[in-house]
Amino acid sequence: MSSGKILVAQGGGPTAVINQSMVGVALEARRFNHVTRVYGALHGVRGIVDENFVDLTQETSHNLELVASTPSSALGSTRDKPDIAYCQEIFKVLRAHEIEHFFYIGGNDSSDTVRIVSLEAAKAGYPLRCIHIPKTIDNDLVGNDHTPGFPSAARFVAQAFAGANLDNAALPGVYVGVVMGRHAGFLTAASALGKKFPDDGPHLIYLPERTFVLEQFLADVKATYARHGRCVIAVSEGIHDASGEPIASLLAREVERDDHGNVQLSGTGALADLLCDEIKAKLGIKRVRGDTFGYLQRSFIGCVSDVDQREAREVGEKAVQFAMWGDRDGSVAIKRTGYYSVDYELLPLEAVAGKTRVMEDEFISASGTDVTDAFRLYLRPLLGSGMPDAFRLRTAPVPKILKKN
Amino acid sequence: MSSGKILVAQGGGPTAVINQSMVGVALEARRFNHVTRVYGALHGVRGIVDENFVDLTQETSHNLELVASTPSSALGSTRDKPDIAYCQEIFKVLRAHEIEHFFYIGGNDSSDTVRIVSLEAAKAGYPLRCIHIPKTIDNDLVGNDHTPGFPSAARFVAQAFAGANLDNAALPGVYVGVVMGRHAGFLTAASALGKKFPDDGPHLIYLPERTFVLEQFLADVKATYARHGRCVIAVSEGIHDASGEPIASLLAREVERDDHGNVQLSGTGALADLLCDEIKAKLGIKRVRGDTFGYLQRSFIGCVSDVDQREAREVGEKAVQFAMWGDRDGSVAIKRTGYYSVDYELLPLEAVAGKTRVMEDEFISASGTDVTDAFRLYLRPLLGSGMPDAFRLRTAPVPKILKKN
Repeated sequence: MSSGKILVAQGGGPTAVINQSMVGVALEARRFNHVTRVYGALHGVRGIVDENFVDLTQETSHNLELVASTPSSALGSTRDKPDIAYCQEIFKVLRAHEIEHFFYIGGNDSSDTVRIVSLEAAKAGYPLRCIHIPKTIDNDLVGNDHTPGFPSAARFVAQAFAGANLDNAALPGVYVGVVMGRHAGFLTAASALGKKFPDDGPHLIYLPERTFVLEQFLADVKATYARHGRCVIAVSEGIHDASGEPIASLLAREVERDDHGNVQLSGTGALADLLCDEIKAKLGIKRVRGDTFGYLQRSFIGCVSDVDQREAREVGEKAVQFAMWGDRDGSVAIKRTGYYSVDYELLPLEAVAGKTRVMEDEFISASGTDVTDAFRLYLRPLLGSGMPDAFRLRTAPVPKILKKN
Repeated sequence: MSSGKILVAQGGGPTAVINQSMVGVALEARRFNHVTRVYGALHGVRGIVDENFVDLTQETSHNLELVASTPSSALGSTRDKPDIAYCQEIFKVLRAHEIEHFFYIGGNDSSDTVRIVSLEAAKAGYPLRCIHIPKTIDNDLVGNDHTPGFPSAARFVAQAFAGANLDNAALPGVYVGVVMGRHAGFLTAASALGKKFPDDGPHLIYLPERTFVLEQFLADVKATYARHGRCVIAVSEGIHDASGEPIASLLAREVERDDHGNVQLSGTGALADLLCDEIKAKLGIKRVRGDTFGYLQRSFIGCVSDVDQREAREVGEKAVQFAMWGDRDGSVAIKRTGYYSVDYELLPLEAVAGKTRVMEDEFISASGTDVTDAFRLYLRPLLGSGMPDAFRLRTAPVPKILKKN
């Protein structure tokens, strides 16, 4: 006999559209007659273990729609990564509540959580359908053309650099903008979409897919500054030396690691400051400024791609449909089918979990400090409609009178 | 005999709407029959001395409108502050080009430049009408209800904190956001407009109008964290100790000063990092994150107040009208006449130049770490239409089964 209870949770870093996926699950599930309850776990798998559930079935559709358009994880999130013992706790709770379908919205770590829970459920003989719903601003899930959350964050980065470029043109100097992305440079590369005119910044882009050599960096900045009288630089927080050591951690006073063994890269301005100090000291340029976009790039309210919103909703809806009409666990993935159109498929969990996609070589220029037109074509439709545009004066110079020679 | 030539320039830090004022001057001036040329000086007073002018009269109205909606200073800006010798150079150039009206868009330093140029012109017996047009995200010009550029930057800050609060609620911890503002806390205080629910952040706001005491700060954070399980903090880059020494400069490795003797506060993440380190070390809270909003808050393309755009355009138009219909130099000022309505007046240059407005006491709560309702009423209409809103789930908790005690 079916209990008709499903559970949805959100894991990892919040995004601008992760609530679209949660609401997609909640509203689509309620269209199936045998679904009696849609529970949400507060703060991801931690909320399951702690038995902290809310009943989304008692929420109005109207408010669910409003929450869908609100950034960050409305159910709360977690960085916990369940081990076997943790998963056994999860089972106890799910069994006690007669949960039949588990939907977990998240990135790499969350997909691995779903994989482990799925395996543990199978081992325990507990009939639990487990579906992972993709989400990450890093765009680093394999098997996906792109991941929900990335387009909106990319839009923020592109808009930020479009504005920073204008500011830098007005008060020339060197500007370093540090962008999130531990292993994958997609989000940093999105800075290139803020360019309009050939001399616009970012003039240099440093990605974790390429080894960062400080001397080469300084030579690049020097050459660009000589050519344009200014230099706008996009840097991934994940840039590393030849040994793989993050440049950021080389100077961190206290390296902080999370439960997954990852060094903290975000939430500190140290990398930007180090690079600015190097430029000032070695190149003798006076006006050098660094910004670290930090949490703004994933949480800023009011900067979102409508394409991202639509797709994030759809992966939530499709997750329910795959669960209800299909017969296997898996991870929902986005496939590009046109320019621009997408469809969705269900990949085996082990094909996605724990794997990291990085930028394909065809997306990175030979110089290693720019993106290719292939990347521009790839990203542009994801940014959505209504991208703000930058315009320049095209006025005639006035002939000099005193200094006419 | 009249040459019919006017000159407009932009000084100081760019804003989201400073081009509205420049275009306001250019388009309004062309409606006066005796105006033959509208010149723009590239990079402020530096462009005058270097005789780098462009002819805005040869620009299309259509493109001027598009430039008006583009952030940053389309003519370029400067941090130069003219002394007597510098002003004599300016006169030579203005006289050679038969410039009759000089419009300079800028903040405190720029208004002082206009004052000096006006005095030098009078001393030299050169008939030059000098009008200062207000612009500063710091909102620190005296005699103005508020200044163009501030509302859009305030909107960015409010939206940033609305998003950061949602992110912090999803993954609880301490979040420190550092906001621009050397002496005036208006922009930092704008973070309060990102709050919707009583337990939303920012929970604590630190302004340069109040002495910053590290021990009290830590006690405030500890108490907030104990109450909410998290804490979102807005900090002005200009916070200082009892002696007036900026907290940021207490830890700066190399203090950089600009030509006005100001210590560089922006373009570095040091203050946020210091405060985060203190919280981690003294309070033992693990998840502590700091962001420095940096140049994004004044340059981000796509975050603008329509009220700000309108008023920035009008101060440019009114500057021309005051120059043409009036008989004295001065500084255009915004007066609030209703809720919400404004009018404009021309203040004497010496009433504005070189003076700094700070937040009025009535805008700061008795605790010193929050704003008052008077401030909320003051700021809200300035933020403009279409402010994004944040919504929450209101779902019912599900009774626990295993942990029902």
